[in-house]
Amino acid sequence: MGLPGSNSGAILSKIATNNQHGENSEYFEGWKAYDKDPFHLSHNPHGIIQMGLAENQLCLDLIKDWIKENPEASICTLEGVHQFSDIANFQDYHGLKKFREAIAHFMGKARGGRVTFDPERVVMSGGATGANETIMFCLADPGDVFLIPSPYYAAFDRDLRWRTGVEIIPVPCSSSNNFRLTVEAVGWAYKKAQESNKKVKGLILTNPSNPLGTMLDKDTLKDLVRFVTKKNIHLVVDEIYAATVFSGDNFVSVAEVVNDVDISEVNVDLIHIVYSLSKDMGLPGFRVGIVYSYNDSVVSCARKMSSFGLVSSQTQLMLASMLSDERFVENFLMENSKRLGIRHEVFTTGLKKADITCLTSSGGLFVWMDLRHLLRDRNSFESEIELWRIIIHKVKLNVSPGSSFHCTEPGWFRVCFANMDDDTLRVALRRIQDFVSKNNNNKIVEKATDKDQVIQNNNAKKQKWRQSNLRLSFRRLYEDGLSSPGIMSPHSPLLRA
Amino acid sequence: MGLPGSNSGAILSKIATNNQHGENSEYFEGWKAYDKDPFHLSHNPHGIIQMGLAENQLCLDLIKDWIKENPEASICTLEGVHQFSDIANFQDYHGLKKFREAIAHFMGKARGGRVTFDPERVVMSGGATGANETIMFCLADPGDVFLIPSPYYAAFDRDLRWRTGVEIIPVPCSSSNNFRLTVEAVGWAYKKAQESNKKVKGLILTNPSNPLGTMLDKDTLKDLVRFVTKKNIHLVVDEIYAATVFSGDNFVSVAEVVNDVDISEVNVDLIHIVYSLSKDMGLPGFRVGIVYSYNDSVVSCARKMSSFGLVSSQTQLMLASMLSDERFVENFLMENSKRLGIRHEVFTTGLKKADITCLTSSGGLFVWMDLRHLLRDRNSFESEIELWRIIIHKVKLNVSPGSSFHCTEPGWFRVCFANMDDDTLRVALRRIQDFVSKNNNNKIVEKATDKDQVIQNNNAKKQKWRQSNLRLSFRRLYEDGLSSPGIMSPHSPLLRA
Repeated sequence: MGLPGSNSGAILSKIATNNQHGENSEYFEGWKAYDKDPFHLSHNPHGIIQMGLAENQLCLDLIKDWIKENPEASICTLEGVHQFSDIANFQDYHGLKKFREAIAHFMGKARGGRVTFDPERVVMSGGATGANETIMFCLADPGDVFLIPSPYYAAFDRDLRWRTGVEIIPVPCSSSNNFRLTVEAVGWAYKKAQESNKKVKGLILTNPSNPLGTMLDKDTLKDLVRFVTKKNIHLVVDEIYAATVFSGDNFVSVAEVVNDVDISEVNVDLIHIVYSLSKDMGLPGFRVGIVYSYNDSVVSCARKMSSFGLVSSQTQLMLASMLSDERFVENFLMENSKRLGIRHEVFTTGLKKADITCLTSSGGLFVWMDLRHLLRDRNSFESEIELWRIIIHKVKLNVSPGSSFHCTEPGWFRVCFANMDDDTLRVALRRIQDFVSKNNNNKIVEKATDKDQVIQNNNAKKQKWRQSNLRLSFRRLYEDGLSSPGIMSPHSPLLRA
Repeated sequence: MGLPGSNSGAILSKIATNNQHGENSEYFEGWKAYDKDPFHLSHNPHGIIQMGLAENQLCLDLIKDWIKENPEASICTLEGVHQFSDIANFQDYHGLKKFREAIAHFMGKARGGRVTFDPERVVMSGGATGANETIMFCLADPGDVFLIPSPYYAAFDRDLRWRTGVEIIPVPCSSSNNFRLTVEAVGWAYKKAQESNKKVKGLILTNPSNPLGTMLDKDTLKDLVRFVTKKNIHLVVDEIYAATVFSGDNFVSVAEVVNDVDISEVNVDLIHIVYSLSKDMGLPGFRVGIVYSYNDSVVSCARKMSSFGLVSSQTQLMLASMLSDERFVENFLMENSKRLGIRHEVFTTGLKKADITCLTSSGGLFVWMDLRHLLRDRNSFESEIELWRIIIHKVKLNVSPGSSFHCTEPGWFRVCFANMDDDTLRVALRRIQDFVSKNNNNKIVEKATDKDQVIQNNNAKKQKWRQSNLRLSFRRLYEDGLSSPGIMSPHSPLLRA
């Protein structure tokens, strides 16, 4: 296209050409590989299983039941179409009043009813993706820094930085204390950043953590609130997994801490929450992102910005009705937690059978899987990527390597477990178990052959052997009667996951 | 909120505090006035009638009929709920394939079927608001300039500039040639900008024009395509009113011109179209904005950015079905054009009765009304705003003054006519007629009393007299049997209008 020899790149913006969109990471590479060969129980049983996508498909049946019982909640039914004109024309950036009220109410319920939210502070945005970018635009200038505990959500590099020019400085967490964030670590990173003449504007947390699935305890949160108040920097807490918790532990929202901490220790103008219905309700397609700020100026500014990513009024109306149905919401949250717990238990127990452990967690749609013992070189990220490529292309599971989350230790992987049905999960587990078992056998073979020095340096042959064995084991799997077609996300969104 | 004496402003970004969001313009002030006292035929017959909102409510009955006949197109009906899980989880930023195909097809139909669009170049965005910002982020760096013929859409100051840092330089058009844009005027503005050491990155047009309702002829468009190619700058054409045309004139899309112009005269890498369903389909609440670019790199970049403002998958699915219904689309477009034409005719004829003329136009949801003869001082924008405040607060019509569209001549007003029912339109027309008639009477009274020097300088009394007369005439209006409650947009969105 265009004139021969025209250089289209030169006429575009720096943003368009600076490759800061983050899609070059392995996180997205895995999705692309999955896209080319997506698993389906009956149609493509040898395909790649998507375990890189933090979707929650476990409770959509409850929503479907609600929809069947509430046709008046939609403008596309005989019972609801009379509202069509009003809704189709509704573009007020405050959002439907009953939508904002329902969201505020749901946010409270999703935090165990221990805290309330003011509908007037609920600002819409295009998913958490849009909400996180919006809050950056409100708080920081290009070149300003936000601190983020690492490992952190891979697409933050795009969402927080790409168009805003904000810089991220990680606060490294490590396995030595189970990746627990401490205020000391934050203080250290803050000091380091200042020494490099960076202007630190705030700290961003995901709580529950993506990718760890862990939750911050109340005391740490209090310490962090005191820290940001003292330093006069912002605290943005992305709580999109607030109700995606499955152990007895109660998730603690920063909203609770704001109420708890002594008034002299918190400047609430510095505290902001990002929320979404993509994870807790399992509705990522609906693009409901929320900025909730205690700062009046931020509410006002973010609302003006929300014009760039409003929630469809059709979707607002339906969710307004659904989320104000108290009985439905309570049952949904309880059932969601229960089913997630069961799924997590089945998955981690299955991994244990393959001698694989995960970081202990109580939230999220994923586990933080420890494969350090399978690395060729335990200190090398090259080894992590080497192992990851085997998992993608041979084991045929799209998991995400820790390096794509800026983890500082090689050998950790984020593995999603709620975006598939039970049958697919079983296939995934057996592939992993099979892989580890083959790997162990190979090690024995390797040891034996090393000793006998028979097939030394014959890597090509060995590789072939491994592949044919894997293929055999796959065939066996599908002959085991796993034939019912299962739900599997057919799409690889290069967004929030 | 916050610590006493804390200065929240200082800790926010420049964007949050630079007041470049454009909401200080009269355009928005009028909406706020309307918000406080919205007209309703039966509930608030003395309220302000909203004529500042470019909504199309004339054909929503056709969409409602279609919805009733196609329950399977929605995930919220018994017939469609089986698709719920797939759709609720769909967050691929490419959009549903059938949605993209339907949009591309509709874009062709909306341009008389004289041109086709490639679904692979259709990029979603959060309304035209989001689409216009996205294309700026793709094409220009902070400080770069886009030329825009003035008068131009008031909210461009926000959409194109606020978060991108792009600067706008107007290309002034005037009544001397009916506000026609010429390539010479563009060339002059380009030269001026260069002389001020500004880096001009492109030209943005609205075609059909908002606020003028006029359309560019093919020859001018060709000249502009040649101009941007020669200067190696971009041409962005916002065609969101492409099918909102009501005269025999055929709208010419830049897509047609790209095909028509000799290959040596156009670098298609520089040509981009913004589209939306807010105006042509009357669905602003659904937030469907489209970036359509002939430049592969822009398509790729804009698609990555679309993550910040995707269209709800619920909405995508419904529209995919509706817009691929050939019979529906053809009938809708024909009927829409017909009803708009009738409405435009009724409105402009009504204005003529009050000796008010408008710029001749054949598209848009508004007229460009000439009230220069009613200004106290024909050369003063203060007089325009003075008259505008009377129209808002006394005549009780929210129209938009030309100055809020950066018009360089005082006395022009944009008046929307398609966001209300026939009864409300009649009330609006009679208010205008009444106002002009009172105004003329007052002039006669003024002249007489000036001569007799009886009530000289007694402005307060005169004002009171005017108000009581206006009130009387209003009362009469509502006693004329206008009692059926009419459709009226109850909301004042501070966004695309």
